[in-house]
Amino acid sequence: MQIESVDFFYLSMPEVTLEADGSQDALLVRVAAGGHVGFGECEAAPLPSIAAFVCPPSHGACQPVSASVLGRALNSPADIAAIAADVAYNSMDVLQAAHTFSGIEMALWDILGKALGEPVWKLLGYRASHAKTPYASLLFGDDAQQTMLRARDAKARGFKAAKFGWGPIGRGTPQQDAEHFMAAREALGHDGILLVDVGQIFGEDVARAAARLPALEAAGVVWLEEPFHASALQEYGALARQCGKVRLAGGEGAHNASMARHLIDYGGIGFVQIDCGRIGGIGPAKQVADHAVAKGITYVNHTFTWHLALSASLQPFAGLADHTICEYPAAPKELAVALTRNHLLPDRHGAVCAPDAPGLGIEIDGDAVRRYQLDTELRVAGRILYRSPKFPG
Amino acid sequence: MQIESVDFFYLSMPEVTLEADGSQDALLVRVAAGGHVGFGECEAAPLPSIAAFVCPPSHGACQPVSASVLGRALNSPADIAAIAADVAYNSMDVLQAAHTFSGIEMALWDILGKALGEPVWKLLGYRASHAKTPYASLLFGDDAQQTMLRARDAKARGFKAAKFGWGPIGRGTPQQDAEHFMAAREALGHDGILLVDVGQIFGEDVARAAARLPALEAAGVVWLEEPFHASALQEYGALARQCGKVRLAGGEGAHNASMARHLIDYGGIGFVQIDCGRIGGIGPAKQVADHAVAKGITYVNHTFTWHLALSASLQPFAGLADHTICEYPAAPKELAVALTRNHLLPDRHGAVCAPDAPGLGIEIDGDAVRRYQLDTELRVAGRILYRSPKFPG
Repeated sequence: MQIESVDFFYLSMPEVTLEADGSQDALLVRVAAGGHVGFGECEAAPLPSIAAFVCPPSHGACQPVSASVLGRALNSPADIAAIAADVAYNSMDVLQAAHTFSGIEMALWDILGKALGEPVWKLLGYRASHAKTPYASLLFGDDAQQTMLRARDAKARGFKAAKFGWGPIGRGTPQQDAEHFMAAREALGHDGILLVDVGQIFGEDVARAAARLPALEAAGVVWLEEPFHASALQEYGALARQCGKVRLAGGEGAHNASMARHLIDYGGIGFVQIDCGRIGGIGPAKQVADHAVAKGITYVNHTFTWHLALSASLQPFAGLADHTICEYPAAPKELAVALTRNHLLPDRHGAVCAPDAPGLGIEIDGDAVRRYQLDTELRVAGRILYRSPKFPG
Repeated sequence: MQIESVDFFYLSMPEVTLEADGSQDALLVRVAAGGHVGFGECEAAPLPSIAAFVCPPSHGACQPVSASVLGRALNSPADIAAIAADVAYNSMDVLQAAHTFSGIEMALWDILGKALGEPVWKLLGYRASHAKTPYASLLFGDDAQQTMLRARDAKARGFKAAKFGWGPIGRGTPQQDAEHFMAAREALGHDGILLVDVGQIFGEDVARAAARLPALEAAGVVWLEEPFHASALQEYGALARQCGKVRLAGGEGAHNASMARHLIDYGGIGFVQIDCGRIGGIGPAKQVADHAVAKGITYVNHTFTWHLALSASLQPFAGLADHTICEYPAAPKELAVALTRNHLLPDRHGAVCAPDAPGLGIEIDGDAVRRYQLDTELRVAGRILYRSPKFPG
């Protein structure tokens, strides 16, 4: 097969708010090769990601992503890795390139799986797709009472695990934060899995993060996610050395496998969270999963969008029976629900699996794509470099 | 003062080739505040960088760079740091944001310096601007003979230091590479400073890089630059442990101060090379310079474009008398020469200095901006998010 076309669809809710909800827009990628069509998603910021695919070159190491993708052979996982290496080299100085290529790379695996009649996780070398326990991703309430109500609601909806994030945590006193942690614990019960995500709120301030550790331990929190910015390896490492039972989690900001490996090796995290829509796709995510296994820590997906991204994100650790927690978009916007004809719904035990179907096993709903698509055009020096394509059918 | 406007000018040579020459296009940033105007440059890939400034938000942590810049107070270096922190937080998931903000941040220092009547290096806390020895950045020839001729030419033009990069190195045998190194040494003479840049050619392959070390040592090469990709900390560290007199150099790919610090702390480099147009501007570059001093290694600028970027790149280590090597665009394209009315020319000893003039001390040539500007337009959902501004005057 040969890669014939790569099309980007910029999809959005009519209104996008500033809440910490990644399901408000999407950049869908459609790739065609050898009579097959595959799909992927770039996370996030559709406009710069489109620009990185079509931009004029600045020089040899600053070429658009398209230069390393269009027309390339696609017959094996090795072909995908070769394309990825060329993107990294030829688009070295286009910072956004990793996000742009992430969606393309997923689509290449989707095509390869469809062509070979195999799910992607089999192409990655796994023999089975093991069930994962989804956690509900929720925002902390404005006060502890609201946090408790949200935890109760998640439990009532059947979730055995809940992650609370952002909101007021880290902005007030450690005591105020402690009230939120205890409220969530109380509502979830003693056997609920409680996770906390503070969204880089402490920047590089280890002491402020460490001041929350006693309350996190007391509330039986399993992980503290993203205390610092994505590259703050030394701060991660310093905090990890002060942790008792709580482990650090991070990695969603990694835009290559090395960055995630460093968080494990230097940052001392216990859970590595990979967004396939940012790290360069499924291939580098699988490398991180292998490294996590070698280092005895746990791999988790980062997915805050829709079920195509969810399927892609489950593939790299589908075969790891002991890595059982998965992020699951618990309250996505209508856009994110409408975009796929099928969904990865929890089974009767409340667990979800990477699908046992060719490729990523997800069907795109063309009507929804057409309904939510934003008309977009990029023009340089009189040439139209990008204009929103029509979704076929 | 308050930041009133931020304008981007996409400038390009009529033809851009794929040679490793970063002076073929430029993204000039013009910022106005309190009656002052400052300039900066984003390196590289103008279109994605513009898109990251104007893109619609995807969610609260994925906002355009503009959201954290326009209307902000600008009265001190602390104000610049506060804006930088907000960009990092609010544009967390826009990968390109660091490159976009780099040019803006330079312009903010330029304004502050002009308003206070001080050169930027004084605002950074330095008392003097020390002379640096510029090296000519050259490409290896197709064969050793051509490399020798280029080295001879650089010596004849008065350069005491020359860096050879890219070309065939790493693509053939170590013996073929050795011939290039020795040819360059022979032409430069025993007292010429010889530097080698292999542009990430070895990816993550430590053994292939190490196979070149004996020849590099024999040719008296001072540094081996970018053997691996920018995030390959462990590979840098492994190679550094095998080095004798040759030291590793790297850092141009760092898009925040942490990444550069990690190359020093984990990667074992002896020279840290910072591009102010990528790392987030002058402030984070100064943090890296401070860290380099603390760790006893040498700071060097990375500048392959024009003299506005050169002045910005010299500021963070202007006051470090012992850090004497600087990169200097030796054969830039006409665009890069025409863009500024003044140039940082070597003095009679062949040395260059950060200017002793308010701000960055560089005057932009409006005629050249107008002549090389590419008409550019970005449109989403019927709204024009960006259209090439007219350069005033």
